[in-house]
Amino acid sequence: MADISLKKNERLDDLERNGYRIIQNPDYFCFGMDAVLLSGYAHIPDGAKVLDLCCGNGIIPILLAAKTQAEHIIGLEILPENVDMARRSVDLNGLSDRITIDEGDLKDATGRYGASSFDAITVNPPYMIADHGLKAQDRARSVARHEIECTLEDVLTQAAKLLKPQGVFYMVHRPFRLAEILSGMCAHGIEPKQMRMVHPFIDKEPTMVLIGGVRGGRSRMSVEKPLIIYEKQDVYTEEIREIYGF
Amino acid sequence: MADISLKKNERLDDLERNGYRIIQNPDYFCFGMDAVLLSGYAHIPDGAKVLDLCCGNGIIPILLAAKTQAEHIIGLEILPENVDMARRSVDLNGLSDRITIDEGDLKDATGRYGASSFDAITVNPPYMIADHGLKAQDRARSVARHEIECTLEDVLTQAAKLLKPQGVFYMVHRPFRLAEILSGMCAHGIEPKQMRMVHPFIDKEPTMVLIGGVRGGRSRMSVEKPLIIYEKQDVYTEEIREIYGF
Repeated sequence: MADISLKKNERLDDLERNGYRIIQNPDYFCFGMDAVLLSGYAHIPDGAKVLDLCCGNGIIPILLAAKTQAEHIIGLEILPENVDMARRSVDLNGLSDRITIDEGDLKDATGRYGASSFDAITVNPPYMIADHGLKAQDRARSVARHEIECTLEDVLTQAAKLLKPQGVFYMVHRPFRLAEILSGMCAHGIEPKQMRMVHPFIDKEPTMVLIGGVRGGRSRMSVEKPLIIYEKQDVYTEEIREIYGF
Repeated sequence: MADISLKKNERLDDLERNGYRIIQNPDYFCFGMDAVLLSGYAHIPDGAKVLDLCCGNGIIPILLAAKTQAEHIIGLEILPENVDMARRSVDLNGLSDRITIDEGDLKDATGRYGASSFDAITVNPPYMIADHGLKAQDRARSVARHEIECTLEDVLTQAAKLLKPQGVFYMVHRPFRLAEILSGMCAHGIEPKQMRMVHPFIDKEPTMVLIGGVRGGRSRMSVEKPLIIYEKQDVYTEEIREIYGF
């Protein structure tokens, strides 16, 4: 593995998968459980060419490299600080042959990669409607959470073009936007095929939703059993421990 | 209460609500748990004028009369045998002042009642895509299950016209059609506002979905905690027992 040189406020976290580690910086991007759950939910065909949109510090490409037989994974990210962290994490894990991190705007992705060029697309997009009152110093962190640089509509517009016919699409998002998500996917020809709600506790409302779709798929979806995070306070369920690899 | 005269193969069931009973006939229509759950899920404003589409033997109008302060409930049903059962059940429960059962085609409902004429609409529609291979003798029962006389699109088209602005829409359906349901509601301007999945057991996939929407509502929905039917084999959960009134 390459030398590790951390910059100011950066830290190095163990991913508990294949010995992989990741550089994080609370000023810019630290991954959350949503990224880990998405990497466990996405069924990536062996040998697939994969694009991860809004890749942040590269968490999803690195986890997919560990968990799947994808041939190549491109992570696209707009913030240069995140791109820099992601590239160094790819290097330090010796994954440069399987993962490429590109800096750029998601809205230009089809122009960059060409239509119908991916077998699978994953995305953990910003969840919240843009807040125009953001202060400049919060901007870097807010880009990951608020639809400042890209909206759900942008994500679906690009994904629908970038996927090959029958290519698969996996996204994690917030349940309060479910109607917009499913109708947007249908409108763009990415048929929703599977969905799983993620609940902190079995008797609580879901806080995340995992969605899978197929470009040009037939109209019929499977809603899966709930994914429960905690079996009791501070104790993960067995399924969550398995996804994390604890 | 009026005299009870049952026809061939009919039976009289106790609804365990206000002493109400209902006439059922296995050859035509017997209500299921879906109707009971919908009647518990629908939040009907006091004094509302309500329309129940595809009312079958009148189960939902009768339960709503028991559970809500709706001023008047119209049940619309296409099969004359069901209309006849429903009318006799309304009579025998002494509900003729609050419930009217109309015979007719849902597709003509706006012509019949006028646009923007209801505060709330409920519907437990046929779930399955039409099966053109049906035998004639199965037809009566199949109309309740298959989209022979009306499709989801028909239901949404009519509901969107019949509801007053900000009027509420409640439907029970099958999860495998969720993408079609949510995108259809959005397309017709009935914004999905709440959704609850119904699971037979906590660790099983949902078999029903309860949906609530508002005509002209704002885009943001609440996904509720799962509704679980059985706490163990043959034993209903407390929530189900409460909805049934056991």
